[in-house]
Amino acid sequence: MDIAIVGYGFVGQALVQLIYDTKDRLRNEDIDPNIKYVINSKGGIYNPNGINLKNFIKFTNMDKDINLYNEDSTINVTFTDLIREKDVDIVIEMTPTNLNTGEPGLSHITKSLSNGIHVITANKGPILLAYDELYKIAKENNVQLGIGCTTGGALPSINSGIVELAGSKITSIVGILNGTTNFILEEMEKNGIEYREALKKAQKLGIAESDPTLDVKGFDTASKLLILTNILMKTNKSIEDIQLRGIDSINLSDIKEMASINKRYKLIGKSILSKGQVQISVKPEIIDANDSFYNVSGKDKAVQYSSDTLGDFTIIGGASGVVAAAASILRDLININRGYQYIK
Amino acid sequence: MDIAIVGYGFVGQALVQLIYDTKDRLRNEDIDPNIKYVINSKGGIYNPNGINLKNFIKFTNMDKDINLYNEDSTINVTFTDLIREKDVDIVIEMTPTNLNTGEPGLSHITKSLSNGIHVITANKGPILLAYDELYKIAKENNVQLGIGCTTGGALPSINSGIVELAGSKITSIVGILNGTTNFILEEMEKNGIEYREALKKAQKLGIAESDPTLDVKGFDTASKLLILTNILMKTNKSIEDIQLRGIDSINLSDIKEMASINKRYKLIGKSILSKGQVQISVKPEIIDANDSFYNVSGKDKAVQYSSDTLGDFTIIGGASGVVAAAASILRDLININRGYQYIK
Repeated sequence: MDIAIVGYGFVGQALVQLIYDTKDRLRNEDIDPNIKYVINSKGGIYNPNGINLKNFIKFTNMDKDINLYNEDSTINVTFTDLIREKDVDIVIEMTPTNLNTGEPGLSHITKSLSNGIHVITANKGPILLAYDELYKIAKENNVQLGIGCTTGGALPSINSGIVELAGSKITSIVGILNGTTNFILEEMEKNGIEYREALKKAQKLGIAESDPTLDVKGFDTASKLLILTNILMKTNKSIEDIQLRGIDSINLSDIKEMASINKRYKLIGKSILSKGQVQISVKPEIIDANDSFYNVSGKDKAVQYSSDTLGDFTIIGGASGVVAAAASILRDLININRGYQYIK
Repeated sequence: MDIAIVGYGFVGQALVQLIYDTKDRLRNEDIDPNIKYVINSKGGIYNPNGINLKNFIKFTNMDKDINLYNEDSTINVTFTDLIREKDVDIVIEMTPTNLNTGEPGLSHITKSLSNGIHVITANKGPILLAYDELYKIAKENNVQLGIGCTTGGALPSINSGIVELAGSKITSIVGILNGTTNFILEEMEKNGIEYREALKKAQKLGIAESDPTLDVKGFDTASKLLILTNILMKTNKSIEDIQLRGIDSINLSDIKEMASINKRYKLIGKSILSKGQVQISVKPEIIDANDSFYNVSGKDKAVQYSSDTLGDFTIIGGASGVVAAAASILRDLININRGYQYIK
């Protein structure tokens, strides 16, 4: 399987390492991974016979710029070169996400699919903004678009909805889809600290970003929920359709009051089908002690689906971090190779 | 898609009804279901152009023997006729399970796969006793064997393990896999009644069978866990390898004692990989209030997987009853039609 990696940050590095480490498992799946391109914003490298991963990992582990890796590869290669050559089976698109334009990911995905190349992406922007169009292009070109990593990484979410609810009508999607806010709320309760202090701790631990807006204001949850809802409930909603409130207005006193009656605040994303309309909200909600979301702790995430013929189910967990994100991309790659059609 | 239904009990009837009711959804999946055969222990009917489902449902709803249905079908048809004609794409095998011999399901599945016909089965016996062999036959004949209904019906279990943990090594499987025992234990706590009384209530509600041995002694849990473990953890275990204890020795006083310290007994099936060996047990275990299994209530089921690269996740829920069982068979059918390869 000839692979191009486009976008080479921490997850990209973890993915290359994981592909190298698990080559025996991949061989059991009849996959012989051959990474021909690694491209990032500054340039890219190319070896038509496949980059020697052992050497490449060693090189990049020393924190060297990939564009200097000329041991077995051509340097200064661009995405345009890749599209001209069309010599890969799959593009793994991992450039930084842009929720407003989707670029550069959107162009990468569009061009790859249009040229008959499968795509797996970890990039929420393009999927949020243009999934229907990308789906159409993939279908026309008889290739697959794997997006398992865009709605909660290792947490089985979008693919579970597609596979496990096949044939059933989904009537609601409810989730704790953002680990950072879940961690902050738990810290506030566990350690009796105010929001600001819990946020600082999360930032110190690398769980929250220095600008935490996307997480704490609910935009990250909203993005994931929109992808899930538009695909699984067949809607065409955008961020403006969501009743949105973050966790930054919750005080320690609110948390304590709930704790005293065995309840907890969680940042809940919710899409409910009612009278033919889907209503979407993202806001802190009060969760009862006998609800399966009550014990979703720390960085964990969860999603609950309700359906007409298969009932409800809740999925809790999925590891966080770059290795898990990489593993969730590899999971899509294996399932595409197994012949599973995300797009039909 | 030409279909044969072999075994026509409550789930079979629900499946025919569901296929009829959801034909628009199935059309969206490019499935035009054409049921050519319905065969049960007393005989069978056949229409090479497809049985008229509307008429057939009306007929069987009046509780008439299918073998009298000669409105548009040949009667007195047997499984041997089906195998001679080989004129279906898929056999849905739903004969009563036999955990000792696997028959008659085992023969049905073997012959269907050997003749290049996909199989979906709800029948635990053959899968428990001969999965490896059946897998091999399916692979040789380039057909699929769907078993999603054998390990908890609508609860996403075996397929989730295959799809959602693709590429990861599963290090443990822990589950509440039997709804009947879960219901009984909850009734004892909720209503302060002894085991005998709770069992009687479950029997009265049709949740427990008149001979409850398979459920309450843990054999049903053990069967499901064995299928999950042998396939997902690649072992070759049998019932003798399991440390097995049912719930029938639990008294109300035990339940009350646990409730007083916010704990609960649950019948837990557990397969743990440790030092290269998989240890399997099925027994009542004490579950803490902050465990995600604590709130798995009533007839609900749950399964938790741990893995090396994708972390842990827990799935809770999945409807009970014949419609949900039928829907979980239809789910396998749709996924096989989408090209998903359970067997590769």
